[in-house]
Amino acid sequence: MITRGETHHVDLNKNMRGGEGTIKITHFMNKEDAEGHGRLFAKIEIPVGGSIGVHDHQGEFETFYIIGGEGIIVDNGEEVKVNVGDFHKCASGSSHGVINTGSEPLVMIALIMSAQA
Amino acid sequence: MITRGETHHVDLNKNMRGGEGTIKITHFMNKEDAEGHGRLFAKIEIPVGGSIGVHDHQGEFETFYIIGGEGIIVDNGEEVKVNVGDFHKCASGSSHGVINTGSEPLVMIALIMSAQA
Repeated sequence: MITRGETHHVDLNKNMRGGEGTIKITHFMNKEDAEGHGRLFAKIEIPVGGSIGVHDHQGEFETFYIIGGEGIIVDNGEEVKVNVGDFHKCASGSSHGVINTGSEPLVMIALIMSAQA
Repeated sequence: MITRGETHHVDLNKNMRGGEGTIKITHFMNKEDAEGHGRLFAKIEIPVGGSIGVHDHQGEFETFYIIGGEGIIVDNGEEVKVNVGDFHKCASGSSHGVINTGSEPLVMIALIMSAQA
């Protein structure tokens, strides 16, 4: 099965989790195709100057894989610079936020899956 | 938790599944961090002229999300052109292969997760 990028559902989230700017979320795989593994499989684009505010995850974990740009991840309270190729996991019970500190969009592959039973 | 791209395990697979060239697989998340959801969370790079031969998946499914280049996916026997932004799922019991038909590396985010019980 192949689905075209232009048919993928896009969410435009303004001030997401209290952050700055408008975050673009392109859902490349829907929940049904994920066969119960999780609720989000998406490309997230944070514009220059944009951010996703700090929030936590409970009963699920989220991962980011950076594919474009650079920024800061607030990883359980600690600010860490990230670049293309870096990976981040916010485990269940942890918190995170993301800030685009660069001069181009910060682009990440994001997965939210259920925490281990 | 943050892991740096340069520390991620890289596999270089020559003639993968009977295909052409050397395929580079960068594992951004290991099986433990995936908390039982699957066995592969990786960036796959197929060089110009390279390919992954046709093979099937049983008891698991694999998805590709194209983030660079262009090519052909042999989707259960049918050749389909793919470009950046397109998504492919090879369900359990199905087969697929990939050919880079472009002039730059074909780059994909690949996930292999267990099929629904």
